[in-house]
Amino acid sequence: MKLGDGVEQAIHSVTMLSCLQPGSTLSAAALAEFHGVSTSYLLKHLQAMSGAGLLEAVSGPKGGYRLARAPEKITLLDIVLAVEGPEPAFRCNEIRLRGPNPYTCKPAAPCTINVAMLRAEQAYRAELRRVTVAGIIADLKTIDGDGAIAARTNGFLALHERKSGTAA
Amino acid sequence: MKLGDGVEQAIHSVTMLSCLQPGSTLSAAALAEFHGVSTSYLLKHLQAMSGAGLLEAVSGPKGGYRLARAPEKITLLDIVLAVEGPEPAFRCNEIRLRGPNPYTCKPAAPCTINVAMLRAEQAYRAELRRVTVAGIIADLKTIDGDGAIAARTNGFLALHERKSGTAA
Ligand code: FES
Ligand code: FES
Repeated sequence: MKLGDGVEQAIHSVTMLSCLQPGSTLSAAALAEFHGVSTSYLLKHLQAMSGAGLLEAVSGPKGGYRLARAPEKITLLDIVLAVEGPEPAFRCNEIRLRGPNPYTCKPAAPCTINVAMLRAEQAYRAELRRVTVAGIIADLKTIDGDGAIAARTNGFLALHERKSGTAA
Repeated sequence: MKLGDGVEQAIHSVTMLSCLQPGSTLSAAALAEFHGVSTSYLLKHLQAMSGAGLLEAVSGPKGGYRLARAPEKITLLDIVLAVEGPEPAFRCNEIRLRGPNPYTCKPAAPCTINVAMLRAEQAYRAELRRVTVAGIIADLKTIDGDGAIAARTNGFLALHERKSGTAA
């Protein structure tokens, strides 16, 4: 089981966008540069998050991406599902119905193995749903004793933040 | 995020093996036939579970697989980790350290995003650790009102169970 590398990039990008002034945007190229990743790959995930209503794409020379809602209203689960898709990690192929002596009629109850696997997945999702982008930023502040993390972010934003974009 | 199809096959196979008489085995071919899956693909997972100490491989003409410990002592987590490997689904590439203005020294605290993602994964694993193969069988009995599931398993085992194998 492996999440795509896009998840780390997507969460970091959303976290970065949450540091923008209201109305400002950041280009996909700037987000990719800051995180040292491929712009085209990151763009795919930014578009997925726009499609899911987490980000807003602003067009034009002053355009880029910004949050579509408050950082308190964006959870890690929102981001993971936008990037990885809504399907559960465990996908039952109903192998209990295969083989040389199939049931004459399909058992009415779902397979107990499937039920147990999906219950674990619900626990995973519940945990991701409890963490918001605002919470990530708050946690970040507690580990940023000397302010080095904030200074690095703010230095980059001072160069790349695009003010007063118009919604696409 | 997707678990391989081998997980479903592996859990069903272990569940089937838990229905054998003490000392008996079932061949990989029989397990594959019962579940309507490829023997060579299933074999890979049976070998992984042997390597992890969940199954015992018995050699010789009466050989096959049997549980290496009691069904109460085998959890869904044991099986998932044996088949999928021990690595977490989220793998931090430390992208916070990349980009055009890297830190002069690496922040001592782990990235808060990584911490949150791994915490969710711990919740997932804790849930899978709570479910044993014995528990799966007990749950199965509660949904097997007319005994059709047990009858199908027992009918197949009557033909394919290999008694009195010797440990490899
Ligand atoms: S049939 Fe799919 S998990 Fe049992
Ligand atoms: S650097 Fe990997 S999750 Fe933040």
